[in-house]
Amino acid sequence: MAQTLAQKILQAHTDEAVEQDGQIVQCRVSMVLANDITGPLAIKSFYGMGAKKVFDRNKIALVMDHFTPQKDIDSANQVLISRKFAQEQGIVHYYGGGDCGVEHTLLPEQGLVGPGDLVIGADSHTCTYGGIGAFATGMGSTDIAAGMALGETWLKVPPTIRVNIRGNMPKWLRGKDLMLMLIGAIGVDGALYKALEFGGPVVDDLSVEGRLSMANMAIEAGGKVGLFAVDAKTRAYCAEHKRPGVLENMAADPGAHYDRVVEIDVTGKEPVVACPHIPSNVKPVSEVRNTAVQQVVIGSCTNGRISDMRDAAEILRGRKVDKNVRCIVLPSTPTVWKQCLKEGLIETFMEAGCIVGPCTCGPCLGGHMGILGDGERAVATTNRNFRGRMGSLNSEVYLASPLVAAATAVTGFVAGPDQL
Amino acid sequence: MAQTLAQKILQAHTDEAVEQDGQIVQCRVSMVLANDITGPLAIKSFYGMGAKKVFDRNKIALVMDHFTPQKDIDSANQVLISRKFAQEQGIVHYYGGGDCGVEHTLLPEQGLVGPGDLVIGADSHTCTYGGIGAFATGMGSTDIAAGMALGETWLKVPPTIRVNIRGNMPKWLRGKDLMLMLIGAIGVDGALYKALEFGGPVVDDLSVEGRLSMANMAIEAGGKVGLFAVDAKTRAYCAEHKRPGVLENMAADPGAHYDRVVEIDVTGKEPVVACPHIPSNVKPVSEVRNTAVQQVVIGSCTNGRISDMRDAAEILRGRKVDKNVRCIVLPSTPTVWKQCLKEGLIETFMEAGCIVGPCTCGPCLGGHMGILGDGERAVATTNRNFRGRMGSLNSEVYLASPLVAAATAVTGFVAGPDQL
Repeated sequence: MAQTLAQKILQAHTDEAVEQDGQIVQCRVSMVLANDITGPLAIKSFYGMGAKKVFDRNKIALVMDHFTPQKDIDSANQVLISRKFAQEQGIVHYYGGGDCGVEHTLLPEQGLVGPGDLVIGADSHTCTYGGIGAFATGMGSTDIAAGMALGETWLKVPPTIRVNIRGNMPKWLRGKDLMLMLIGAIGVDGALYKALEFGGPVVDDLSVEGRLSMANMAIEAGGKVGLFAVDAKTRAYCAEHKRPGVLENMAADPGAHYDRVVEIDVTGKEPVVACPHIPSNVKPVSEVRNTAVQQVVIGSCTNGRISDMRDAAEILRGRKVDKNVRCIVLPSTPTVWKQCLKEGLIETFMEAGCIVGPCTCGPCLGGHMGILGDGERAVATTNRNFRGRMGSLNSEVYLASPLVAAATAVTGFVAGPDQL
Repeated sequence: MAQTLAQKILQAHTDEAVEQDGQIVQCRVSMVLANDITGPLAIKSFYGMGAKKVFDRNKIALVMDHFTPQKDIDSANQVLISRKFAQEQGIVHYYGGGDCGVEHTLLPEQGLVGPGDLVIGADSHTCTYGGIGAFATGMGSTDIAAGMALGETWLKVPPTIRVNIRGNMPKWLRGKDLMLMLIGAIGVDGALYKALEFGGPVVDDLSVEGRLSMANMAIEAGGKVGLFAVDAKTRAYCAEHKRPGVLENMAADPGAHYDRVVEIDVTGKEPVVACPHIPSNVKPVSEVRNTAVQQVVIGSCTNGRISDMRDAAEILRGRKVDKNVRCIVLPSTPTVWKQCLKEGLIETFMEAGCIVGPCTCGPCLGGHMGILGDGERAVATTNRNFRGRMGSLNSEVYLASPLVAAATAVTGFVAGPDQL
């Protein structure tokens, strides 16, 4: 049977024949992930279901990234639960100190997830790893507990929406814009329990980091996963990121069955923003140009990688952040942070008047380190702009690429990089 | 009448003759300070007492440093109150974005306070500026409101304790150690409503930053102020820090009356730590050597200046933070941060595995960015170690110099720099 990417990867992790969408299959997992918020819930369930030892202490990652450095006593005590569990179980991939970064940037970077893997994580943006061809999806903490105990999970084979992206990629467009366009087109439930499978010449040309950024937001369209074929770029990325030995490409079979095919032509398109209060409320930047902002956030699991930092720095270099704006830059991992340092990007950010912070999810989820007050408005490179997501119920978040976010920081108004 | 430093400075700010300790004098203030916590209270009082305009929009500083980048909705809304007030009143020295730093490092650095000034601030560590010969003291927000309205305040002339520090200064001792030794000797109420006036050859040789670090903790002995004479070092510091024109030295008059004289000899002394849960519980490092810690904080208004960062970097260079320790480094101001960048100190911290954060008071007061969970223990370069100060009521804080803090980060146990 000709298989989609989703079917193909699941097939490699189950002894059953993956024959049709909607089929329930029992799968072996490659990596199980939890963070400082979800870890304690999973651990409680783990022991609650009578489990004693994790299935493989090398295949569990605990990343204390949401409230780090710990914002309050409760979050500090939550970390203690995960740390104790990691010590008891001898878990190898515990990140809680200077090694800690935003989980979905950290895991691909550290080679802990890779092409063809099946990854489950107690975090909705686990789907990020689809950018390098992993079937990766978020689950509740109870399912994660079972995964930690058994090394297996059940999945319903998702129908696949094929997304073909064509045309001449404009200079200022990034993966983030492509994904926001898609979400704008199909809606936040457009891919509900479906796999998004991306292809077409624009995707072929897109950097792996751009793909990770897109896959990250599959869940914002309701998707179970967001998948990219494995090509030479993916293999080069893996070789560079402690995941050598990925020698083969992987793509959907010709003739695979798709639930739906979406075509996007990027020719002549300008950068977009997702306006409040839903990621599908997508408009070209020029339509919201005069919107004053008080905060800009550049970072997160969506756009905190080195290419994102380079984009932001390109705009901020030699310029100043507007005096009414707090521009918070949070490189996603210590590796990204150090690379920024090496390339002079940290200096660029500081000279421009940014606030450079540690590797944390922080403001994205209204956690800490850049929370909005009443009536404040932010442009953020993050992934969700629901009412109150970044603070006050009377605040607003616009989602955008690092290029748009940086241009906005300079002007004090929502702006595209071509407006500077 | 021969005057102490405290009397002399007050004399310059009042039309009354300063003749004896305990006398109440009405004084003109040079600068009035509030922060993100105390500002809103002062502003409410300001309008509540019928005030309309601040006495001088150039002589008020509002620094949003405690919970920045804003940790939650409440702190974000608090900032909005100060920001609105600053806009309404045209206040020149409002710091709330990329320009923001820890107030007591920021004000001397930006030349907003200087020798001979009388400074009142709605923050107990306002006494820091005594390090450059300013009579600077913390007050409640209502007094600060009156100061903002009138440009005046009343003060009781404090009796002065003269502290003479002599001997051969050991290589690893810093101002922080000297001050902890003093507090250990006289107790946390040893200088209650008194001025501490520091002198002697060791103080003469001490850097201005070391003096600021000492003056900062005058309040930890109950002191109203902690004063250092103005000498060539002070004048050089002022010239470098946007406060030119300080041409004259200033010292207590020979024959001035002291309430008490304390003599300290540093010869042969080793670095000290203030053990839980009071700053006067001071012990030589070697006595608490085997105490495991989970967190180290290097920063704050006590020790977040460039000399502190250089000290920490000297210890951390080429070494690694212990895997069980989170070492959080928070340079106090953007200027310090950028200087660290220029000198390669940020790189040193990152390579050692530190978490480098933005300019904030953060963990010192249990605010955010490094809060302790149950049973955790920290060594911090901050100024208070009361029970629960940095988080859980069941956590512990040891106060120390950046040298000791950095050595502790490397070993994972309370350690002096000579133990590496």
